[in-house]
Amino acid sequence: MEDMKLSEKKPVEPRSKEDMEKLLSRLKRIEGQVRGIQKMVEDERYCVDILVQISAINAALKKVGMNILKRHTQHCVSDSIINGDSNESIDELMGVIELFSKI
Amino acid sequence: MEDMKLSEKKPVEPRSKEDMEKLLSRLKRIEGQVRGIQKMVEDERYCVDILVQISAINAALKKVGMNILKRHTQHCVSDSIINGDSNESIDELMGVIELFSKI
Amino acid sequence: MEDMKLSEKKPVEPRSKEDMEKLLSRLKRIEGQVRGIQKMVEDERYCVDILVQISAINAALKKVGMNILKRHTQHCVSDSIINGDSNESIDELMGVIELFSKI
Amino acid sequence: MEDMKLSEKKPVEPRSKEDMEKLLSRLKRIEGQVRGIQKMVEDERYCVDILVQISAINAALKKVGMNILKRHTQHCVSDSIINGDSNESIDELMGVIELFSKI
Repeated sequence: MEDMKLSEKKPVEPRSKEDMEKLLSRLKRIEGQVRGIQKMVEDERYCVDILVQISAINAALKKVGMNILKRHTQHCVSDSIINGDSNESIDELMGVIELFSKI
Repeated sequence: MEDMKLSEKKPVEPRSKEDMEKLLSRLKRIEGQVRGIQKMVEDERYCVDILVQISAINAALKKVGMNILKRHTQHCVSDSIINGDSNESIDELMGVIELFSKI
Repeated sequence: MEDMKLSEKKPVEPRSKEDMEKLLSRLKRIEGQVRGIQKMVEDERYCVDILVQISAINAALKKVGMNILKRHTQHCVSDSIINGDSNESIDELMGVIELFSKI
Repeated sequence: MEDMKLSEKKPVEPRSKEDMEKLLSRLKRIEGQVRGIQKMVEDERYCVDILVQISAINAALKKVGMNILKRHTQHCVSDSIINGDSNESIDELMGVIELFSKI
């Protein structure tokens, strides 16, 4: 994370405690799945099984991403549109959509 | 992993110690990045920063996948072709390629 | 097109003549590229060349899609947000983003 | 097509007449769908409908691509493996898989 330049911006609407816990538990599960891949590599499991598991993790990560993207659109992007300064936030949104459509 | 039905097949050619270590260290790094996302969510970092980091992890996982896929093609698939029973392995290969082209 | 149920909705903001012509000429070019693939298949060109050309068409179509998606966000989605009834349009937007992230 | 440097290589195994016709008719259909998009743009159809149609074309193109990729693996790549000079063809195969996983 240290090599990534983080923005000073904050989400317009903080997550509820419940929403935060749900998101963190999904990420915890994904972390466990990545450890599971390491075990499969150490155990010399069949390559196709490992590849299927990697694609399952990528699909789970993408789902987390879509959840965050929707919330971002509902709050941060909507807020900028209502305040009449949406150019930057829509460009930002499109940049993220492009990123997600390439992975 | 427990809910996934693992095949009894083994890679035709075991990885060298060096190759194994390289692959495990990349997966370790990805595991750390997933933990980093959890921290960003806890710290209520800006949504777009989190999304950029998720797409970086997806890209890193895909790269690991391509490395494994290439090795699988060079050894397991090639072996089945040389032994004259490649139908199943090519179908399997195409199945994985399709999976990776959708995530 | 006949098997697809088209919505009665119209874009909130019609395209300028110039914008329309630019979009149509890009689509005309893509149409020509698809004909080009047919020629390559008839001429029994090397498979990898055909595959590279197919991925170029996919990328060009995706670019057209991103252009339309951005405009849709700037006008139709923004309009619904300003009018205070954005739930449906954001759900619709997320549905399209999901579609584009899978192809 | 003119700006693309085509390889002198030929598919190891020419398509049967029937296989060729099937592939060409799928491409003809895709060509018609691209024209359909042009009509939707001219008729100012709703943006989301156009985007859904673009993603349907991309999915159809990808299916054509997977069909060609499978056949290429069964014939050209397999042939190079049997002849013992598979490095180049496997590198080529991985390059195409990478291309398709990014669109």
